[in-house]
Amino acid sequence: MQNPQVSLDALAVADGLARELAATAVARDQAGGHAAHERQRIRDSGLLALTVPREHGGLGADWPTFYAVVRRLAQADSALAHVFAFHHLQVATVLLYGQPEQQARWLGQTVREGWFWGNALNPLDKNTTATEWDGGFDRLLFSGWHEASQSNVVAAVDARHPAVAVQADWNAFGQRQTDSGTVRFEHLRVPLADVLVAPGTTLSPRATLRTLLSQLILTNLYLGIAQGAFEAAREQITRHSRPAPLSTASRAAEDPYVQHRFAGLWLLVKPAALVADEAARSLQQAFEVGEALSERQRGEVAVAVIEAKALAHRAALEVSSQLFELTGARATASPLGLDRFWRNARVHTLHDAIDHKHRDLGRYLLDGVVPAPGSYS
Amino acid sequence: MQNPQVSLDALAVADGLARELAATAVARDQAGGHAAHERQRIRDSGLLALTVPREHGGLGADWPTFYAVVRRLAQADSALAHVFAFHHLQVATVLLYGQPEQQARWLGQTVREGWFWGNALNPLDKNTTATEWDGGFDRLLFSGWHEASQSNVVAAVDARHPAVAVQADWNAFGQRQTDSGTVRFEHLRVPLADVLVAPGTTLSPRATLRTLLSQLILTNLYLGIAQGAFEAAREQITRHSRPAPLSTASRAAEDPYVQHRFAGLWLLVKPAALVADEAARSLQQAFEVGEALSERQRGEVAVAVIEAKALAHRAALEVSSQLFELTGARATASPLGLDRFWRNARVHTLHDAIDHKHRDLGRYLLDGVVPAPGSYS
Amino acid sequence: MQNPQVSLDALAVADGLARELAATAVARDQAGGHAAHERQRIRDSGLLALTVPREHGGLGADWPTFYAVVRRLAQADSALAHVFAFHHLQVATVLLYGQPEQQARWLGQTVREGWFWGNALNPLDKNTTATEWDGGFDRLLFSGWHEASQSNVVAAVDARHPAVAVQADWNAFGQRQTDSGTVRFEHLRVPLADVLVAPGTTLSPRATLRTLLSQLILTNLYLGIAQGAFEAAREQITRHSRPAPLSTASRAAEDPYVQHRFAGLWLLVKPAALVADEAARSLQQAFEVGEALSERQRGEVAVAVIEAKALAHRAALEVSSQLFELTGARATASPLGLDRFWRNARVHTLHDAIDHKHRDLGRYLLDGVVPAPGSYS
Amino acid sequence: MQNPQVSLDALAVADGLARELAATAVARDQAGGHAAHERQRIRDSGLLALTVPREHGGLGADWPTFYAVVRRLAQADSALAHVFAFHHLQVATVLLYGQPEQQARWLGQTVREGWFWGNALNPLDKNTTATEWDGGFDRLLFSGWHEASQSNVVAAVDARHPAVAVQADWNAFGQRQTDSGTVRFEHLRVPLADVLVAPGTTLSPRATLRTLLSQLILTNLYLGIAQGAFEAAREQITRHSRPAPLSTASRAAEDPYVQHRFAGLWLLVKPAALVADEAARSLQQAFEVGEALSERQRGEVAVAVIEAKALAHRAALEVSSQLFELTGARATASPLGLDRFWRNARVHTLHDAIDHKHRDLGRYLLDGVVPAPGSYS
Repeated sequence: MQNPQVSLDALAVADGLARELAATAVARDQAGGHAAHERQRIRDSGLLALTVPREHGGLGADWPTFYAVVRRLAQADSALAHVFAFHHLQVATVLLYGQPEQQARWLGQTVREGWFWGNALNPLDKNTTATEWDGGFDRLLFSGWHEASQSNVVAAVDARHPAVAVQADWNAFGQRQTDSGTVRFEHLRVPLADVLVAPGTTLSPRATLRTLLSQLILTNLYLGIAQGAFEAAREQITRHSRPAPLSTASRAAEDPYVQHRFAGLWLLVKPAALVADEAARSLQQAFEVGEALSERQRGEVAVAVIEAKALAHRAALEVSSQLFELTGARATASPLGLDRFWRNARVHTLHDAIDHKHRDLGRYLLDGVVPAPGSYS
Repeated sequence: MQNPQVSLDALAVADGLARELAATAVARDQAGGHAAHERQRIRDSGLLALTVPREHGGLGADWPTFYAVVRRLAQADSALAHVFAFHHLQVATVLLYGQPEQQARWLGQTVREGWFWGNALNPLDKNTTATEWDGGFDRLLFSGWHEASQSNVVAAVDARHPAVAVQADWNAFGQRQTDSGTVRFEHLRVPLADVLVAPGTTLSPRATLRTLLSQLILTNLYLGIAQGAFEAAREQITRHSRPAPLSTASRAAEDPYVQHRFAGLWLLVKPAALVADEAARSLQQAFEVGEALSERQRGEVAVAVIEAKALAHRAALEVSSQLFELTGARATASPLGLDRFWRNARVHTLHDAIDHKHRDLGRYLLDGVVPAPGSYS
Repeated sequence: MQNPQVSLDALAVADGLARELAATAVARDQAGGHAAHERQRIRDSGLLALTVPREHGGLGADWPTFYAVVRRLAQADSALAHVFAFHHLQVATVLLYGQPEQQARWLGQTVREGWFWGNALNPLDKNTTATEWDGGFDRLLFSGWHEASQSNVVAAVDARHPAVAVQADWNAFGQRQTDSGTVRFEHLRVPLADVLVAPGTTLSPRATLRTLLSQLILTNLYLGIAQGAFEAAREQITRHSRPAPLSTASRAAEDPYVQHRFAGLWLLVKPAALVADEAARSLQQAFEVGEALSERQRGEVAVAVIEAKALAHRAALEVSSQLFELTGARATASPLGLDRFWRNARVHTLHDAIDHKHRDLGRYLLDGVVPAPGSYS
Repeated sequence: MQNPQVSLDALAVADGLARELAATAVARDQAGGHAAHERQRIRDSGLLALTVPREHGGLGADWPTFYAVVRRLAQADSALAHVFAFHHLQVATVLLYGQPEQQARWLGQTVREGWFWGNALNPLDKNTTATEWDGGFDRLLFSGWHEASQSNVVAAVDARHPAVAVQADWNAFGQRQTDSGTVRFEHLRVPLADVLVAPGTTLSPRATLRTLLSQLILTNLYLGIAQGAFEAAREQITRHSRPAPLSTASRAAEDPYVQHRFAGLWLLVKPAALVADEAARSLQQAFEVGEALSERQRGEVAVAVIEAKALAHRAALEVSSQLFELTGARATASPLGLDRFWRNARVHTLHDAIDHKHRDLGRYLLDGVVPAPGSYS
């Protein structure tokens, strides 16, 4: 079990880091590209060791603590929170897929050398070409299609290996500093010792928790965006907005419609946060069950994650678009950068289709069928 | 602190009671009037002593347990759950407003003699005529306007006292067996020993928790309706509904739109339940603080209750109306009585206006002002 | 072309009839059963001849006029408006399916003898047992399955023929006086002259307008319910409602939230009405094209009808449920019967599944594919 | 009355212009600033004379035709459509406020010299500093506060007059090429002959139609954005999108959820367009009534405009944000520029607060009170 102090300390560090990221978030969103300085600040914070077990020298935080940190960072900068969170997803992948020797070796080095993990995992891609790449990493997890066994192989590689060619071709209108891009591998030879998932391996239910960890990262990034947008709206309304032309209120914050709508936005954010917290606890419990985790138990965590993701998805989109109804036209000035919340939410919530998640949830609620483990559930 | 076994036992008893009430709920809703037999079954269950402290011979359940029981009963029959819950509100009133002697006397008798409490409290009514009355009670709390001190007096009276005249004039299209009605008091003389709130008394923040207990009862009744409707829909869809004419699914439960919509309803119910649970815990903590409770602390509980009530309000109305979109036309047959969920939700959610609650919540979120204690907050 | 005076006269007569129906609508909804007196009043009004062409002695109203009358009646009483509208659907069926001789014979008699038409048409039922029957009719259209040709036959029969057995088994919680029920035919022999659709007939696109006429009847019934509920809400709010407890307005009608919400309901009703009007004009044009009507032209009318029906569906449900948010608790008194709007809307909108209509509309908008003619489109 | 051919010709010209604008809209949105070339193309099209009466050499189009053109242009480029529409608002201002001599002089020159009108009208600004300026204009309408009469004066001025100083300080994240900015007037002397509204003038109800013309311009810009976004979504879905990972459809356009949602967006766009068309006809009728127009008649047009604006507001925001749910992640690539619809809608819909418009509409619907003429209604 985790030391409760870890959680308090991690959140305090995250708070400081978030304040720092917030100060430059608008400018960096407009610039796009690679945030080298900020990534170094994350590295310096020590939070890259957050989820590494204490036996490997890490902080040994549990998943609820990790998600709280992700959410906090995403309020300030959802692109860097994304990079941060996906580093930990790779740490978790080593824990879920790797052999004890690999865990000891890689996670130890992660702590000692301050490795930043990225990934080029795409189980749906059979051209050995991953479609996402995180630049500026030290070590990459990647997947490749193994024709003979008709299965995916997962391995780790030094990100600067000469056979790894990366392309900074991410050009979406949101989540601009996530260092996403295309990675190509040309005749890369991977030593057996670096293979986490060998050809033909069937993953245990526990190993497939990886997808749920990943989906709950998205959830908490969405929530962070929603919360960041909500706070930015509060700041505008209470400090800068003027009452609407036809309003009789002396301050925008006292207009009955502004108050009503603001409450409405909160009623999207708060329940989504509670449901996400519950999902994180349920994921933590499943993690702790170990290899005995049954398909059913794993499936029920998947359901909890779908619930949380659906609510966070809506909260992020609605709050980030509706906030302007409350702040009025002045808040649309480009230097304020308040449109970044919607752009980030809009781009990031398209990771996988919400409607089919609803269908999976409905199927469970009606017929008790849990979602099949896969790349998105 | 409460014995955890109390909660388990109470919920088990409530489950049995709920099953019993469910069996006749449709017929009794159609008949309306006084449910004498069912009230006796509630009395027999021992649950009238649920919130009475153990020092007075009760079960000493905490408020979260109480609300879980209310919600469970309301799934089966929201009218009788209402009667049950308001009994406990009067028990709480004795605890919050009464002197130690009154608590010992009345709560002891409540347990020993199986008293069912009702109320004719209406602080807004200055004609000493309460507008709501619960029939078949043993003991009533009531309020009256004291002209000299320009304040309300609250006292308890034997419900069969000859000066108390009751009128079963409740005729709403929902919540039909709540035994609501009008009570008139003609020249009733109340001994000082039976007065809980004397003329001119200023209630402490803790005493004003009464309104929040009451508002959270409404919340859990709404939630129970939403959950009852949700379960009824599941039953219909999985057992009785046929696929829609243009559907290609072989069972209604496998239609992609049915699955999607059903998930949508759940995403109203589940977060509302989590937020209500959180509000109940926050109310319990405030209760335990005792007379030291500050206005601010009290106000933050009020905010938590508003959040919970707003979500439960919407869940109850939406689930009870939309369920038919999923079940199809057969579910509108009168003998099934599935319209009762909407009728009960619709009538009960009008207790106080949701929009002004949203405004109070927005004011708190924007300017940090907590709602003023009153009859509705 | 229709004489414009016809439309004005018909609407004036409908107005008078609607006022008369409104006076007893609440009581009759509560009683259920057969509204003999009111059906006689409809007969007396002359409006049963509304859509009968002038050459057969009728008023020769066009479809937009007919739908305006249906909507007007439905504001007062959507069950009797239903009975009235389905009479005209059978008149239209004689026009669309029948031979000139049949049209002359039956429509002439309809006018001269004041026939009220009902139907027991159910093309999906292969047991020759229609599942819907309208009581108190003079003449029925019915369908039966012809095994040899694997097709439906449609014919007319005197409703009092001894081989026709009817059962008043309609027991839904809404649309209670529609005289729906089950009809059984025992060894009924139909003369060839009374067969409208012979075994194996392929209907022309024009003949399949019947379904669209029927769907647009539903649409206008929903709209009438929405408009009736809206007017009832206005009446309550402006004359009877008190401001909400926490409101600072001196009249409910002056509360800013009441005004806002009321506008919101109107913004459901008004656009639905405009779209329904447009669909009626498009249907009228298609009707006037005659047998040359192409599948594509017919399909575009089908799309217009889906659009109108979807909007009317939502307007009816939302207005009839949300109106109470505006009127407050007093409006839930049973004698006012204001819940009938929701009950009628809820039952009637389940005629066919809205989601699959949305899908048909989306398919048209994306790929230009018009809905296939059938029992519901 | 207008020659029907005018409308057909104008729409054909607008179509060509829209196609041309569309080809560069994404690039120009990203560049921001002044679109000199495109403004010249508008000038060349002859459409600057669209609403100038034929007696002054213009095309004499009616307002419904004008709005159809605005909407068509806005589908392609809502910033340039804005510039185009506000030119015509100034033409209308000359017609509504000006003397016959002024109309003849200025409108004649508008046609002969191809004037582009802009405005610096801001009746709420008492510092003689208008807060909006459209660059690249030939002639400006502006307002100034007249201290002695405590009223606004409106006059026209050559935009290149040395006393007129303009500042291109518009920096919102949407509607970027509207040439908005701040105009300052330093010791400008205006000849009496150029004053349209003299100090102390009370505007007739007809003259106050100007605000409604302006509000209906906004409405049609919003609608154009909604329609442009809808068409862009269709293009993406049918040509470029892949089915969602968990979908069983072979094409995105055949996924049942995509079809359903796409229909849902259309059901926002289409009714909004019908209601806007109706408002345009009602405005045209009021315009034709002339100076006899009563306050009540004017007020009913105001109500029609509020209805249209509220629906268009919602359609623009919802379609422009939700379209991505349908197209999937690929559509977020910056070069496609599909986020511009939301950015344009979001910035432009904040012109004035929607909630207070709803309140005005509700007040009319409940108590029959028409909105008072003003800067926003």
